[in-house]
Amino acid sequence: MQLFFAEHLPDQGRLTLNDEESKHCKVLRKQIGDQIQLIDGQGHLATASICQIQPKFELEVLNKTYHAPPRAYAFHLYVAPTKQNDRIEWLLEKAIEAGLDSFTLIQTERSEKHSVKLERLHKVALSAIKQSHQWHLPKIHTMQPLKSIGMPNHALVAHCETDAQKQPFLKAVSHLGSNEVNVFIGPEGDFTVGEIDWFKSKGAQFVSLGESRLRTETAGIYCAMALNAGSPFFT
Amino acid sequence: MQLFFAEHLPDQGRLTLNDEESKHCKVLRKQIGDQIQLIDGQGHLATASICQIQPKFELEVLNKTYHAPPRAYAFHLYVAPTKQNDRIEWLLEKAIEAGLDSFTLIQTERSEKHSVKLERLHKVALSAIKQSHQWHLPKIHTMQPLKSIGMPNHALVAHCETDAQKQPFLKAVSHLGSNEVNVFIGPEGDFTVGEIDWFKSKGAQFVSLGESRLRTETAGIYCAMALNAGSPFFT
Repeated sequence: MQLFFAEHLPDQGRLTLNDEESKHCKVLRKQIGDQIQLIDGQGHLATASICQIQPKFELEVLNKTYHAPPRAYAFHLYVAPTKQNDRIEWLLEKAIEAGLDSFTLIQTERSEKHSVKLERLHKVALSAIKQSHQWHLPKIHTMQPLKSIGMPNHALVAHCETDAQKQPFLKAVSHLGSNEVNVFIGPEGDFTVGEIDWFKSKGAQFVSLGESRLRTETAGIYCAMALNAGSPFFT
Repeated sequence: MQLFFAEHLPDQGRLTLNDEESKHCKVLRKQIGDQIQLIDGQGHLATASICQIQPKFELEVLNKTYHAPPRAYAFHLYVAPTKQNDRIEWLLEKAIEAGLDSFTLIQTERSEKHSVKLERLHKVALSAIKQSHQWHLPKIHTMQPLKSIGMPNHALVAHCETDAQKQPFLKAVSHLGSNEVNVFIGPEGDFTVGEIDWFKSKGAQFVSLGESRLRTETAGIYCAMALNAGSPFFT
């Protein structure tokens, strides 16, 4: 099933596809009268019939249904961008496949990358939900300095410093008493000791992600997949 | 800490690095008298001093220690190779970072790829254990037709067919009554109904990997990470 995207899906009546999705429809040689399926990234799935193909594709919505979020928890990931764009894009794609609700880029003391093309990340996210047949597009937030972020309750922080206070990730999640899971992951060089102290002062908890060193992007995907697989134990 | 590889690490005395590792040492401008650390992929870590650099690097082993496997379970993955080499290599790398004991390529009815360069996979595996500071190199087995594989006890099979008998992956693992976890993952087009029936006849159990469709390589890494994160609950 091929899915198309439209930011606003009317319950009925007409809508015009944007340039990107029109192009996509054209490449697939869709014709007047063909039916396609659309998502709005907010839980809706619609079936629509093509009624015009030039200059843009216009559609008539035939029906529209709402799908509730499929998971019993929400996963919010805060991560410093990797030096290589493809690694952060890969993280975003795989985290979405496993389940992600929001993605916030953070600027940390050891960050080597100070800007990321949000538009590109949006494309990756959209393609990931289409591919994995999900109806909810995670929110992607622009980069913010770490200490300017309003610290969520019970944040979990993955760092590589030796710390007796670390709990295995899913154990920590199972003790949260909340289905909102907020995870912070540092840059390639890790959070600094100062940043770790700052997290401590904000009441964050420290978690371990297994016994071997994980790259930034691997750590993010580890959390997404562990939450998905572990949810029968903690929700 | 930079790690080098030697297939046989003597308890003491001399050893010669192979061509690849000699080249690596040369690139790093290692000199006579420098000390380096070596692994043999079987749990040993040695410190050795360089005593000759031409034509190959020769070393004097100073000490050698054994590290037991770090996990309380063993993970054996049986997977059909992806059409694109980079995806199967990525799966192998990430599965090793999270914990993998053996990797067996299987040929299935819908496999589109019928050969894989094992030498290349060995390189990926070696690089992954070095990078993540692990001392045990997983065994990589050459491709075999699915039905010629001796079916391990309590095999877990991930397929996408609707099946009321599927259990969430970590639930199934927690009921195994064994710390040997054997997982089968099909090709891009999934196992056929005939193959699924064959698994059933062999006593395999079917597992679900979350609610969204995962690619072959994502499914493999999902299992590796879920096992790593879930092990406090099942070991």
